[in-house]
Amino acid sequence: MIEDKRVIEFLKKHKIKFKEIKHHPVHSCKEMAIAAKIKESEIAKSILFKTESGFALFVLPGNKSINERKFEDIFNEDIELAKPDEVEKIMGCEIGGVHPFGNLAGIKVYCDKDLLKNEKIYCSSSTTTTIEIKTKDFIDITKPEIIDMNVIKKGVKESLGLTTTRKENFSKWYLDVIRRGGFKDQRTPIKGFDVIMPWGYAVWEQIQNLMNELLKQNGVQNAYFPLLIPESFIEKEKEHFKGFKAETVNVTEVGGEPIEKMAIRPTSETIMYYMFSLWVRSYRDLPLKINQWCNVVRWDTKITKPFIRDREFLWQELHTAHATREEALKEIDNIIKICEKMGEYFAMASLPLKRTESDKFPGAEFSIAFDTLVQDGKVFQGPGGHFLAQNFSKAFNIQFTDKNGKKDYVWQTCLGTTTRQIGGIIMHHGDDKGAVLPPMLSPIQVIIIPVLFKGKESSILNVCKDVESKLKELKIRAQVDDRNYSPGFKYHEWELRGVPLRIEIGPVDLKKNEITIVKRYNNEEVSIKINEIDKIPKILDEIQKEMFERSKKFLKEHIHDARDMEELKKAIKNGIARANWCGSKDCEDWIKAKTGAAVRGTLYGRNEKPFAPCVYCNKNAKYVVYIAKAY
Amino acid sequence: MIEDKRVIEFLKKHKIKFKEIKHHPVHSCKEMAIAAKIKESEIAKSILFKTESGFALFVLPGNKSINERKFEDIFNEDIELAKPDEVEKIMGCEIGGVHPFGNLAGIKVYCDKDLLKNEKIYCSSSTTTTIEIKTKDFIDITKPEIIDMNVIKKGVKESLGLTTTRKENFSKWYLDVIRRGGFKDQRTPIKGFDVIMPWGYAVWEQIQNLMNELLKQNGVQNAYFPLLIPESFIEKEKEHFKGFKAETVNVTEVGGEPIEKMAIRPTSETIMYYMFSLWVRSYRDLPLKINQWCNVVRWDTKITKPFIRDREFLWQELHTAHATREEALKEIDNIIKICEKMGEYFAMASLPLKRTESDKFPGAEFSIAFDTLVQDGKVFQGPGGHFLAQNFSKAFNIQFTDKNGKKDYVWQTCLGTTTRQIGGIIMHHGDDKGAVLPPMLSPIQVIIIPVLFKGKESSILNVCKDVESKLKELKIRAQVDDRNYSPGFKYHEWELRGVPLRIEIGPVDLKKNEITIVKRYNNEEVSIKINEIDKIPKILDEIQKEMFERSKKFLKEHIHDARDMEELKKAIKNGIARANWCGSKDCEDWIKAKTGAAVRGTLYGRNEKPFAPCVYCNKNAKYVVYIAKAY
Ligand SMILES: [Zn+2]
Ligand SMILES: [Zn+2]
Repeated sequence: MIEDKRVIEFLKKHKIKFKEIKHHPVHSCKEMAIAAKIKESEIAKSILFKTESGFALFVLPGNKSINERKFEDIFNEDIELAKPDEVEKIMGCEIGGVHPFGNLAGIKVYCDKDLLKNEKIYCSSSTTTTIEIKTKDFIDITKPEIIDMNVIKKGVKESLGLTTTRKENFSKWYLDVIRRGGFKDQRTPIKGFDVIMPWGYAVWEQIQNLMNELLKQNGVQNAYFPLLIPESFIEKEKEHFKGFKAETVNVTEVGGEPIEKMAIRPTSETIMYYMFSLWVRSYRDLPLKINQWCNVVRWDTKITKPFIRDREFLWQELHTAHATREEALKEIDNIIKICEKMGEYFAMASLPLKRTESDKFPGAEFSIAFDTLVQDGKVFQGPGGHFLAQNFSKAFNIQFTDKNGKKDYVWQTCLGTTTRQIGGIIMHHGDDKGAVLPPMLSPIQVIIIPVLFKGKESSILNVCKDVESKLKELKIRAQVDDRNYSPGFKYHEWELRGVPLRIEIGPVDLKKNEITIVKRYNNEEVSIKINEIDKIPKILDEIQKEMFERSKKFLKEHIHDARDMEELKKAIKNGIARANWCGSKDCEDWIKAKTGAAVRGTLYGRNEKPFAPCVYCNKNAKYVVYIAKAY
Repeated sequence: MIEDKRVIEFLKKHKIKFKEIKHHPVHSCKEMAIAAKIKESEIAKSILFKTESGFALFVLPGNKSINERKFEDIFNEDIELAKPDEVEKIMGCEIGGVHPFGNLAGIKVYCDKDLLKNEKIYCSSSTTTTIEIKTKDFIDITKPEIIDMNVIKKGVKESLGLTTTRKENFSKWYLDVIRRGGFKDQRTPIKGFDVIMPWGYAVWEQIQNLMNELLKQNGVQNAYFPLLIPESFIEKEKEHFKGFKAETVNVTEVGGEPIEKMAIRPTSETIMYYMFSLWVRSYRDLPLKINQWCNVVRWDTKITKPFIRDREFLWQELHTAHATREEALKEIDNIIKICEKMGEYFAMASLPLKRTESDKFPGAEFSIAFDTLVQDGKVFQGPGGHFLAQNFSKAFNIQFTDKNGKKDYVWQTCLGTTTRQIGGIIMHHGDDKGAVLPPMLSPIQVIIIPVLFKGKESSILNVCKDVESKLKELKIRAQVDDRNYSPGFKYHEWELRGVPLRIEIGPVDLKKNEITIVKRYNNEEVSIKINEIDKIPKILDEIQKEMFERSKKFLKEHIHDARDMEELKKAIKNGIARANWCGSKDCEDWIKAKTGAAVRGTLYGRNEKPFAPCVYCNKNAKYVVYIAKAY
């Protein structure tokens, strides 16, 4: 509990009149109301929150409860309850006894309008002391921002434009694009369980189509496995599951009646490999390559971020089984090719990094992930594959008889791509107008906007429709936006969503038999003749390539060799450090502790030779590693 | 507890020597072992199960526990624990005191091999009496089938053919096709949570593609909503959720720590309509048509049946919102058209039935479902739509401002199609060789099988590959089966899976420049010239049409007018009764009680005139209804 003295001195210093009410010890607003003979609605309940930019104190009537989700909606920022130690550190008091004078701790105060309807309000200065002050005085000294905690902002037409630039606030810019670009809506009742909006979902469908094609070429079959996994299975592969245990959501009852505890899959190894053990009998059943598209749940307790850190997300998990170590390693090569091809589709240059021992997937012999660089200088992990060796096949008894009648355990690999990727694409390509989608991924590749003038409406609209159907014949995803909005509004909206090519058709163009084309990724504007429509597929191809080239250039320019910690710190400010490492976990941990950046691994399959001693301990280096701050 | 007398008289009658051990009352094998000073492994624990064909008694050592899933695997049949009242009725004793002498009750006994390793075994004849008999004597009088309850059959190459015909055992035939045709594997650890195998999943992907196309034409957008729904939402629409409550699986903890109770979605109205309330503001936002493809969980306690009654299944749920009742009713017409089109793709004739008041979707004003007739005379519910009126929009406050600035609640409809449909397709079209898939749905439309002879291998294989690529150019899903198996084995396998067209190419054909074509649905075999390959798309179209025609004829032939209960009973023996109904719930209930058949509803939009009095009460009839036994 906060010491009496501090609050009381503060009030005296500001010459605020107050009354002290002494009572037996209390531990909640309800108890306080009874002991001090006051109304719960007159008590200033104070709750400390952590936002992306710092801390904020919310003060509301004791009889009202709080809904984090609503705050996020109001602030358009991720928000979470402060932890007990943070409350103590920041406010100088325990949770349950927080005072409403946030400014005493240099914290901004937000106050619910209903509390201020009271003439007097009450707060505790200790478990046995309640303080009464005039509401007017409280407002004078804390200068709160007055908000309505009950209301989800609704009925207000959201302005389309972004409220900030990438440079001002990258994180807020990202949230704006996600929400206003129609990728996700986070205003759901459960944090980290968002709605993937039609535009965002359509991008995911594109990713699915492209990935399915690559998987099929690699002999993969899709299937579907159960959502729930019994506890006994988890016990079977404790080592692997350990990494997921704290995040695993458990099911314990049906219709109010208890049932055997089961986990919602955080990943499907245990159930899939159990089935593999039933399916694999002979070398003829190998290789087995099974993929599933599904939802998974990981209850991360950190601040959630749409797509980037969700508690429920969608993904693809490919699991393969092979007769020999060599064949499984060859499958890792196939997986890398798939990841590279997807990187091309995403137009995102990346480094195929073999993760360090401490960073690899639980149960894998080694893990490879494709790191791309985001505009803010942090890296982002794209699709990744794992070489599981026989670790799982031994735990799950996946045995087969080889050509000579000898029994052996299968060799395994796996690969995953998640909806997280959509967040990476937006952060990688986006600009201050919104998302920028590469043509391969954009649900609409060409948006056609009629610039209507009186008397010309129908002729312009007809040309638009013609262009649309010609493009569709060329297998381009084209669409006329004939909604009753101004062309300017439409330009903004489709820019926000990231459509790679915009066609404008107005009376001036029409006269010249031309159309105006605007490329999203570089704002380039050109006119082409209306009978040159068949050039558009090529233009889209070029955009795809140029975006990829731009990304490669960006990556290359932001990797810097670092021979010592000073160079390393400089390199990771806006990119990736290429440094030398002795291989010890100690050095890895110290690098992280000193710089906030992680050793992301070695370039897979390259065996790069160290060019200096270990960047941290200065002893002999074994590896060239890539170090960066990461999402 | 069973009375001493009955078991003891039975043993005496069969001249079996036994000892009685008296002790204080016991209530479990553990207690019994202590009280009678015997080993738990010597106790004959007996458990009564209900199978699809009747009851079965399983006897196992007291220290072993039972795994239903393994039994299903051994018996290839659905199986569940008998209910307390069934145990009492069948065995004459309570659960917990069941004796192992199944034949005393006319029940087949299965005994675990481990129990029979004991020289003597023990069972209770009452809570205070344990009986000791020689194992040899137990075997002599009960003649058990000896099984190994520990082992999942593995390593045994399954025979491909079906073990039964539709006529012999329709239910077993169905399970055989599902499992051996590669549609599903039920050998998972959780009942009703099966694996959808690659072939079954590929059929689902076909259904998704076809449905997505129809939805898109109807202006529908796909999105994704959270898996978990908080309790407070369920409270909001109690009336609707009531129907799902007993089947709803709840999440209560994360990593062992308690969290607020949430439900795994059994359907998504509550979360989707909450979001609708945030999205809809003005008439310009309407109509809103949002669809999601996802998994849902309903913990049905009845016997599960793959696809037909799963606890987790995949589905599509379309939810629409409109400005007026008329527009929403028009959307119901769109939904009906979508269902009809899907019926055409499934090649399944159906009746669009408006369900009775007691059978409609909870919260709907009315429900329409498409009933098809299965070969065993029962009906099967296909896709269905619901007219929700303003019932949900009022509960979830989905309001909009109309053109005149007046506020109103939206009018809603919804539509669902599930993986259950795959079961219906198999039951509807299948024959004694396996599944029969219509060309629109089959993942492979043409399977090409080389009939290899020595010396001709490569030339035959080359022709096969040629045919494959020509068919692919014609947009036919074709595949050469060049695995190292006999042609006969391959014929069987693809027949089992239901591929609509098989092409055989052997040396004889090759000489004549011909290929042999075999149609799956009617076994018709024809030869065509190799340069007539381009006829195959038309042949597939014809198969699709003919299967649909055959289905229509089958449905028509199995609907019979019924003027009284005798005619009704006759009609529902192998089909649907068309009868007259007064509209009272009493008559509906009595019809069900007397015949086991349900009033499935009236033909939607037809307003058929009654042709006789109510089939049950003989009073004035209001409706012509369709009555049948149903899955
Ligand atoms: Zn070092
Ligand atoms: Zn009646």
